[in-house]
Amino acid sequence: MRFSSVLKQSAKYAAHVPKSGVFPQGFQVGSVASGVKKNGTLDLGILVNTNKSYESSAASVFTTNKFKAAPVILSQRVLEEKKGKGINAIVVNSGCANSVTGEIGLKDASQMAKLIDEKLGATSSSTLIMSTGVIGQRLQMDKISKGISKIFTDNSFGSDFNSWLNIAKSICTTDTFPKLVTSNFTMNNGTQYTLTGMAKGAGMICPNMATLLGFIVTDLPIESQALSKMLRYATDRSFNCISVDGDMSTNDTINMIANGAVKTDEITEDSPEFLQVRDQVTQFAQKLAQLVVRDGEGATKFVTVKVQNSSTFADARTIAESISNSMLVKTALYGKDANWGRILCAIGYAKLETLDSLQTDKLNVSFIATDNSEPRELKLLVNGVPQLNIDEERASQILALPDLEVLVDLGTGNEEAQFWTCDLSHEYVTINGDYRS
Amino acid sequence: MRFSSVLKQSAKYAAHVPKSGVFPQGFQVGSVASGVKKNGTLDLGILVNTNKSYESSAASVFTTNKFKAAPVILSQRVLEEKKGKGINAIVVNSGCANSVTGEIGLKDASQMAKLIDEKLGATSSSTLIMSTGVIGQRLQMDKISKGISKIFTDNSFGSDFNSWLNIAKSICTTDTFPKLVTSNFTMNNGTQYTLTGMAKGAGMICPNMATLLGFIVTDLPIESQALSKMLRYATDRSFNCISVDGDMSTNDTINMIANGAVKTDEITEDSPEFLQVRDQVTQFAQKLAQLVVRDGEGATKFVTVKVQNSSTFADARTIAESISNSMLVKTALYGKDANWGRILCAIGYAKLETLDSLQTDKLNVSFIATDNSEPRELKLLVNGVPQLNIDEERASQILALPDLEVLVDLGTGNEEAQFWTCDLSHEYVTINGDYRS
Repeated sequence: MRFSSVLKQSAKYAAHVPKSGVFPQGFQVGSVASGVKKNGTLDLGILVNTNKSYESSAASVFTTNKFKAAPVILSQRVLEEKKGKGINAIVVNSGCANSVTGEIGLKDASQMAKLIDEKLGATSSSTLIMSTGVIGQRLQMDKISKGISKIFTDNSFGSDFNSWLNIAKSICTTDTFPKLVTSNFTMNNGTQYTLTGMAKGAGMICPNMATLLGFIVTDLPIESQALSKMLRYATDRSFNCISVDGDMSTNDTINMIANGAVKTDEITEDSPEFLQVRDQVTQFAQKLAQLVVRDGEGATKFVTVKVQNSSTFADARTIAESISNSMLVKTALYGKDANWGRILCAIGYAKLETLDSLQTDKLNVSFIATDNSEPRELKLLVNGVPQLNIDEERASQILALPDLEVLVDLGTGNEEAQFWTCDLSHEYVTINGDYRS
Repeated sequence: MRFSSVLKQSAKYAAHVPKSGVFPQGFQVGSVASGVKKNGTLDLGILVNTNKSYESSAASVFTTNKFKAAPVILSQRVLEEKKGKGINAIVVNSGCANSVTGEIGLKDASQMAKLIDEKLGATSSSTLIMSTGVIGQRLQMDKISKGISKIFTDNSFGSDFNSWLNIAKSICTTDTFPKLVTSNFTMNNGTQYTLTGMAKGAGMICPNMATLLGFIVTDLPIESQALSKMLRYATDRSFNCISVDGDMSTNDTINMIANGAVKTDEITEDSPEFLQVRDQVTQFAQKLAQLVVRDGEGATKFVTVKVQNSSTFADARTIAESISNSMLVKTALYGKDANWGRILCAIGYAKLETLDSLQTDKLNVSFIATDNSEPRELKLLVNGVPQLNIDEERASQILALPDLEVLVDLGTGNEEAQFWTCDLSHEYVTINGDYRS
């Protein structure tokens, strides 16, 4: 897959890209084709907070890869210096990841942020930076610099649907559709607010493309510590619960900004609304993360792996991850093979915290149809006993669905975790292996 | 791939299957087509120790998968009861893994061992059992039972080359060639001895095939604790250092028997020869394990991943494993793409014991040609700095080789580890995904 084939109006594009939307108050976004991407498509985007009535809060979850790209190192620094407050911009570019670029890479990332800070009249660094693209190449700062100027001087900032769709496009690399989600929520106290987010993925991408990038903004006022906890909680249940190929890049970053444009009491960890908003952010983040799996390289299937009734959340998550990352499970799903042996195997080699969470004679494994057809559940293993007379015709029907669920019931507690994964197809190998041939 | 295409005389068969060999004294092997495998090929093998002058020692390394198949559970039990001494037979079948078969599976495995013990006139259980094949199906005990009788009554035991080759064939499932290795060694004290081993693999195999199985026998007298340490050491550097798809089965087992038919002092942990024999067994096990990778499903390339100058062995091994299991590295190798970014990424997300072992500015990554062509080494990353003027033509030449090495120098100590891996090809997806279609 080359850049030139990116963002074509595929069936996935039609199914997953919104045609309109409402967006949070007090944010403006702009984007431009800076020329870093050779095919001349959008590759540079800026989000700014225009609400002055509240000092914004920001939080991030960064890659744990030991090789952190320059924008990751710099954004971490900015967040620490500002203690998660007063972050008023995000700048993102695609086409070059500014990763493994040493000191010069840090200077370039710093310069990129500084250009925005100057335009915004900020006295200290208040811009987060995200980059995605080729590893080991320097940012073309002349193009980036001109691009930033152009967004400001042409006054191409906007808060309408097209402005948001365009910035979502500008962060894409080999994505086949932009991932933009926006939703309104009502809190128990009646306050209405909006979450808007975008992401790019999926997997590590050819030839040296990197990265899961995403950001979410809201017009609620959320205290920075509370925002940080919310985003960590949501990410652990969304962006950290998706598997395309199990590889983690040097640039992975999820940012969140709350600008408080909605007039309501600031939400802290002690607020009665904290848990409600945390859960709404989590569901929202799941929706966004799932789009990354739907656009998984070569994926023909979207599979929810649900592990329930576990004695611990961590072990439920570890088992869901083990199944989701198994190449053999993924190829069996591609081949529409009701291969519960491979699922069981992946459960068995998951590295669990406690052996209590997995007891063979309490284990149940089923396939679940998600298209409302009946019977919804096809039991493969019941209390550790393989079902010998599996309805193979029904199994084939369920496995032919583009969406399906693998349900694992551990029967050892009441915690649950979900992962979202895709199948492993010939197309994945083609995309990732045949770039130069 | 179906059974019918198995063991066809491929180029790999010609390259990796010996045409003759010498074997350790005091062992006899027999095999038969019991009918468990539907295509009527060899699927049941028995090895017996005929040397009565020494009480044999045995050791095993078993799967750590939480779902252990009946033969694994039973063999563990036999080894414990006998304290690793007086094990005089190994019985192995292919076509059915006797896994996830509950109590009845344990009874079947027990019965299988008992039939051999009776024939050998053993007063207590002295037979190890290995099974590989479909998960969740009962052993066809009538066929197994008749097969065992047939091997004994037809007196089809032998110690010649064909007998050994046939038992190596009888443990195969979707392998494209039998994996039989035999070598003579001379100890510093002048004693000559022989190691013979066989294995089957590779990966977890369609439709529910399981398992890496292997066993090594020698005519040296080795005390059972010493044998156990040797086998663990060797396995950690051989069978536990290969990656086809990162999946671990319910049946994985490596057995070793030392029957002491060679007249020399028994080797204990305190013997001056202990380390020499341990290292010879390790090299031997590596040779056998590498054959499993060479027969990796769909593999077109055999890749050695060497991580050297690490502050700890464990971290060197973890990094080698992370690179070897990365789907993106494996597809890049398939696509002949000099994609050091993916290698770096896989190094960066390896879960290390200590951060001391990995320091960005000391890291070197190279491709190494293994065909004696020059320049042998192609440097990709030197002291953390990407080499900008990589000789792409030379890179293509090296990546086109069927054998090559990825060399990672951590520069933080003097420990090293190696992994052997293969590429991820379209054929892998076809083999594992298209079974029913």
